[in-house]
Amino acid sequence: MFVTMQPSCPKSQVAEAIQALRGHGLNPRLIQPGNQNVLGIVEEITAETAAKLSKQLKALPGVEEVCDFSKSWKLVSREFKNEPTTIPLGRVEVGSRDILVTAGPCAVESERGFMDIADKVASLGAGALRGGAFKPRTSPYSFRGLGEDGLAIMARAREKHGLPIITEVLEPEEVDLVAAYADVLQIGARNMQNFALLEKVGDTNRPVLLKRGLMSSLKELLLSAEYILARGNWQVMLCERGIRTFETETRNTLDLSAVPILKQYTHLPVVVDPSHAAGKRELVPSLAKAAVAAGADGILVEVHTSPDSALSDGRQSLTIDGFKSLMLDLKPVARAVGRTIPEAAS
Amino acid sequence: MFVTMQPSCPKSQVAEAIQALRGHGLNPRLIQPGNQNVLGIVEEITAETAAKLSKQLKALPGVEEVCDFSKSWKLVSREFKNEPTTIPLGRVEVGSRDILVTAGPCAVESERGFMDIADKVASLGAGALRGGAFKPRTSPYSFRGLGEDGLAIMARAREKHGLPIITEVLEPEEVDLVAAYADVLQIGARNMQNFALLEKVGDTNRPVLLKRGLMSSLKELLLSAEYILARGNWQVMLCERGIRTFETETRNTLDLSAVPILKQYTHLPVVVDPSHAAGKRELVPSLAKAAVAAGADGILVEVHTSPDSALSDGRQSLTIDGFKSLMLDLKPVARAVGRTIPEAAS
Amino acid sequence: MFVTMQPSCPKSQVAEAIQALRGHGLNPRLIQPGNQNVLGIVEEITAETAAKLSKQLKALPGVEEVCDFSKSWKLVSREFKNEPTTIPLGRVEVGSRDILVTAGPCAVESERGFMDIADKVASLGAGALRGGAFKPRTSPYSFRGLGEDGLAIMARAREKHGLPIITEVLEPEEVDLVAAYADVLQIGARNMQNFALLEKVGDTNRPVLLKRGLMSSLKELLLSAEYILARGNWQVMLCERGIRTFETETRNTLDLSAVPILKQYTHLPVVVDPSHAAGKRELVPSLAKAAVAAGADGILVEVHTSPDSALSDGRQSLTIDGFKSLMLDLKPVARAVGRTIPEAAS
Amino acid sequence: MFVTMQPSCPKSQVAEAIQALRGHGLNPRLIQPGNQNVLGIVEEITAETAAKLSKQLKALPGVEEVCDFSKSWKLVSREFKNEPTTIPLGRVEVGSRDILVTAGPCAVESERGFMDIADKVASLGAGALRGGAFKPRTSPYSFRGLGEDGLAIMARAREKHGLPIITEVLEPEEVDLVAAYADVLQIGARNMQNFALLEKVGDTNRPVLLKRGLMSSLKELLLSAEYILARGNWQVMLCERGIRTFETETRNTLDLSAVPILKQYTHLPVVVDPSHAAGKRELVPSLAKAAVAAGADGILVEVHTSPDSALSDGRQSLTIDGFKSLMLDLKPVARAVGRTIPEAAS
Repeated sequence: MFVTMQPSCPKSQVAEAIQALRGHGLNPRLIQPGNQNVLGIVEEITAETAAKLSKQLKALPGVEEVCDFSKSWKLVSREFKNEPTTIPLGRVEVGSRDILVTAGPCAVESERGFMDIADKVASLGAGALRGGAFKPRTSPYSFRGLGEDGLAIMARAREKHGLPIITEVLEPEEVDLVAAYADVLQIGARNMQNFALLEKVGDTNRPVLLKRGLMSSLKELLLSAEYILARGNWQVMLCERGIRTFETETRNTLDLSAVPILKQYTHLPVVVDPSHAAGKRELVPSLAKAAVAAGADGILVEVHTSPDSALSDGRQSLTIDGFKSLMLDLKPVARAVGRTIPEAAS
Repeated sequence: MFVTMQPSCPKSQVAEAIQALRGHGLNPRLIQPGNQNVLGIVEEITAETAAKLSKQLKALPGVEEVCDFSKSWKLVSREFKNEPTTIPLGRVEVGSRDILVTAGPCAVESERGFMDIADKVASLGAGALRGGAFKPRTSPYSFRGLGEDGLAIMARAREKHGLPIITEVLEPEEVDLVAAYADVLQIGARNMQNFALLEKVGDTNRPVLLKRGLMSSLKELLLSAEYILARGNWQVMLCERGIRTFETETRNTLDLSAVPILKQYTHLPVVVDPSHAAGKRELVPSLAKAAVAAGADGILVEVHTSPDSALSDGRQSLTIDGFKSLMLDLKPVARAVGRTIPEAAS
Repeated sequence: MFVTMQPSCPKSQVAEAIQALRGHGLNPRLIQPGNQNVLGIVEEITAETAAKLSKQLKALPGVEEVCDFSKSWKLVSREFKNEPTTIPLGRVEVGSRDILVTAGPCAVESERGFMDIADKVASLGAGALRGGAFKPRTSPYSFRGLGEDGLAIMARAREKHGLPIITEVLEPEEVDLVAAYADVLQIGARNMQNFALLEKVGDTNRPVLLKRGLMSSLKELLLSAEYILARGNWQVMLCERGIRTFETETRNTLDLSAVPILKQYTHLPVVVDPSHAAGKRELVPSLAKAAVAAGADGILVEVHTSPDSALSDGRQSLTIDGFKSLMLDLKPVARAVGRTIPEAAS
Repeated sequence: MFVTMQPSCPKSQVAEAIQALRGHGLNPRLIQPGNQNVLGIVEEITAETAAKLSKQLKALPGVEEVCDFSKSWKLVSREFKNEPTTIPLGRVEVGSRDILVTAGPCAVESERGFMDIADKVASLGAGALRGGAFKPRTSPYSFRGLGEDGLAIMARAREKHGLPIITEVLEPEEVDLVAAYADVLQIGARNMQNFALLEKVGDTNRPVLLKRGLMSSLKELLLSAEYILARGNWQVMLCERGIRTFETETRNTLDLSAVPILKQYTHLPVVVDPSHAAGKRELVPSLAKAAVAAGADGILVEVHTSPDSALSDGRQSLTIDGFKSLMLDLKPVARAVGRTIPEAAS
């Protein structure tokens, strides 16, 4: 249940509402989105209690609205905040007319290798760099990334090109370390419901890229974002990256319906990762163009100078030439739907 | 197994190859795609027999190649025929640079209603008309369409507007009747593996629109198309219309990866039906644009003058205004990917 | 909508109710389950009309109840008929305490081969014989069965062993032919929504084994059964045989929850085919025992004397020894849940 | 890659093999399952390097076998350890002839409530108690459990009844706390690929109950277990609890094929949670019996004294009477498949 106070109500009225809730053994949390005071009741309450409470609270001075969030009310929702949330990232304002193109290898494998890729994708117009320093791996025996060394390498690439870097964080204990280097904290698909991790990134002031779980409904994705917003961090980008289905031609099935649906429900930006979904580089350009046409605010693509010798996900990485022609093809599609891919100042 | 004869080989050599196969108890069928003679062995044979046969046949005069189609060889495949198959349909050459936009209601409900919708979508630039006269219904008690009356109504709309009509055929016995009225025979998702029906439409000279089953893999879709081609009808359009997944926000999950994958495997045109996949009209424009950006050769959308009183699928039908703005939005996307939506001669 | 007349009401009252419905342009069909007269309204009507009609009809003499079947009312439902439907099949009363064990090869490949398998499974206690004469095949080039010859072979096995035979029918035109030989008409998974076929088997007096589609919900399975019952054939067994999921270890995922769910909703018997779901013979015994423990009324298993040389589905066929030990293991499980596998009179 | 040394080889030979691997820039880890020395190479290496290494190592004294675990070799596998792993838990030896029945509420809601349920299920023959103190919740606003208070309550129930307690741990930082109270650490479905958490429980000496993710393949489940074993904790029970499919009649689709498949691949015990899969209590008894018949080593069921007022998952919790009759029904099924449900000493 949420209690929304009138914008101008004095603190004493907020306190009174809190007292009323405490009188029922509840422990409301005060959330302050925009310029409003909202009291969130975290405890589960019966429909009966809810009805009684609602009546009592509406009678108090300063109370604007009481709503049962079990329906649809959420910090992430359009009902709560209708204007789109935009996130400034380098030269791109994510969530505005701008389209963010993030490129880079699956994993940072070496300084030379990463710098080489960064040089190329930067010169071809990428708006941000991606790369993995901490890699989640299905098998305990797979390459798990360079760790902090990888972060430092990415940071040097940022210095060189002035491009923000996006990298994954795997566990709560690593959040501070990763946040010290990265511009955007990525929560991977496997961790979409790692609630401790969500709350920890919610406590930082870094934008978060939240990937949809392989098995997760769009409602669950929104509720995971809600975990982050509820801690005070509103800079969350949602990322569609494919779901599991019976089809085996692709690694996962890219669900582009997610774009218009999420846009309908939430004010948060929505980006698409066609590389992980497709699992095959030859499908990436079609899906990237489709994502932009569907209304996505950005795409993440994997690019590698020699994909076939990449330590992970080489099969789905574009070559430099592939990325070049994707950038050429993507611009007219962005224009066709009223969007722009911001170019580097020269 | 397939045995491909040399293009110029005399009939006697074909006969000799057939004799050799019959000597093993097999009953090869002669297929004549393009100007070649190909012997298809329908019986399942063991790997051992295949190896023996292959050796024996390759030694015969006039035999160009012996291949085990269990791998990839199929009439539908790019290996067999690399140049795209194009299907002339009204002013649109499906499979070429042209984009086919097919519009109309889910079901033909009345002459007046259908004519009204046809007038509108024709004037807004639709390239073909769709509508259901025979409707497959999950429940035996639902409205099953007007039958032949519906076909006649559609035919009158064709006369008036010069637009080809596409309509579903449900059972082998109805194929001749539907083919007498319709320009394109549609096989619905539920019938994708109704092999008797596939063979019956394969015996006609009408183009076929073959919809992917709700839980059919792309390979199975291609093999169903193969049933039609194997009967001599090469005018088949494949249609992605959403698959079943765990996600409940959409009626089905539109799998746009299908477009580049099918294009890779087959020379047949590929179209997309975003209406049935989405199940909600507000998602249709995004998905239609995405389909064209992904490389589809056409889209099918449901349009209704008063969707909320439609007898079926009203929730997913665009209004006339919705269709109008979709047409406006679709043109620049088509141009951005080097395609055109052919306009009516004025 | 359904109108249930009082059990003892005179024909004139039934006629009056029919007249009232016709006055609204509807064409009710008279169904006579048990000893009652029920009028089914096949046309789709708006909620508003339904409300008006309901009021008018309830005021007529002889009308017991008016219900909107869009909710739950169906011929297949427990609400309509609570006592279990039982189907006598050889020495087994399917749907009673008896467990039906049906065994045989995927396809009838030759008289000698089938007779050999039939001899073995009959002597080991099978209650019915299965085998395919008309085979649905994903590829047009696969072995499609012996056709009528296969039916004749199965019929001779029935003569010899006194066991009923179950075989698939693929298209409406073949129904009469198959019904001339078979004791049970099987509708395969791909044809679960082949409505013309469902209606044709609904017109026969043969029991029907209706397999769940790979992509079909349990509600859709029930509605497909409804097609058969609505034509007057109430002898329908529902068959769970696995659904498509992301898991690739099995051919399909056997959904044993289907057993208690279907039993809750319907009076029809429910059987399970673990062979097609598993796709691997070593999984069949566990799943067969689980099916009986879950409350299934029978199982269908594929058995072959030399599975590795079977023309189809050999990988999932039990050997004779495997079937023998399954029968030994199944009996105590059946007893443990209060069921019996009827033995042959000796 | 794994290098298995001969059982009796001297340490110097192990050191020599390690040196050889380090010479290639690799950092092998020494694992000592049973009485053998095995060197695991964690780094990813190319097929070419693997071939070269393999040849070199096989030539060294004391090396018994070199295998590329990318194929099938894993600590969890039958190839590595064929005899079943058994885990002593109260009076039950999990993985032996014994069947473990674990019962309790979804969440510990209060001392009185939990004790009441514990009294009842203990007297009815439960072999272990389950309950949630830390609850993963899709929404940040749902009840998240009593935390350490809940653990203390469970511990008091253990004292009273002498039954081991099983409870979920959500994040690495909580592992020590939960391990101080609980007999078995449960990893929930959402955390199956929370690798930091897996490694942390792998560092404890507590048995682990590892639940399959909602969309995780069985291979992925085994690889997650591998994470735990690789840290030295071999006491892992795998738990099937339903996967996500298109079917909406159940919360998830219980995949009982998992039981025979996992048993084929691994020496670890396999248990089944029918409550979470079904989502409806009336389906639980059928599925529990089916699980035991399929060969499961145990079941977990949710039981509540007044399910309808439970704070979570009440809909799927058995009543006390329901649990009582399940226990009665389960015993003959266990016997029928050669298993026992150990009874409390009286």
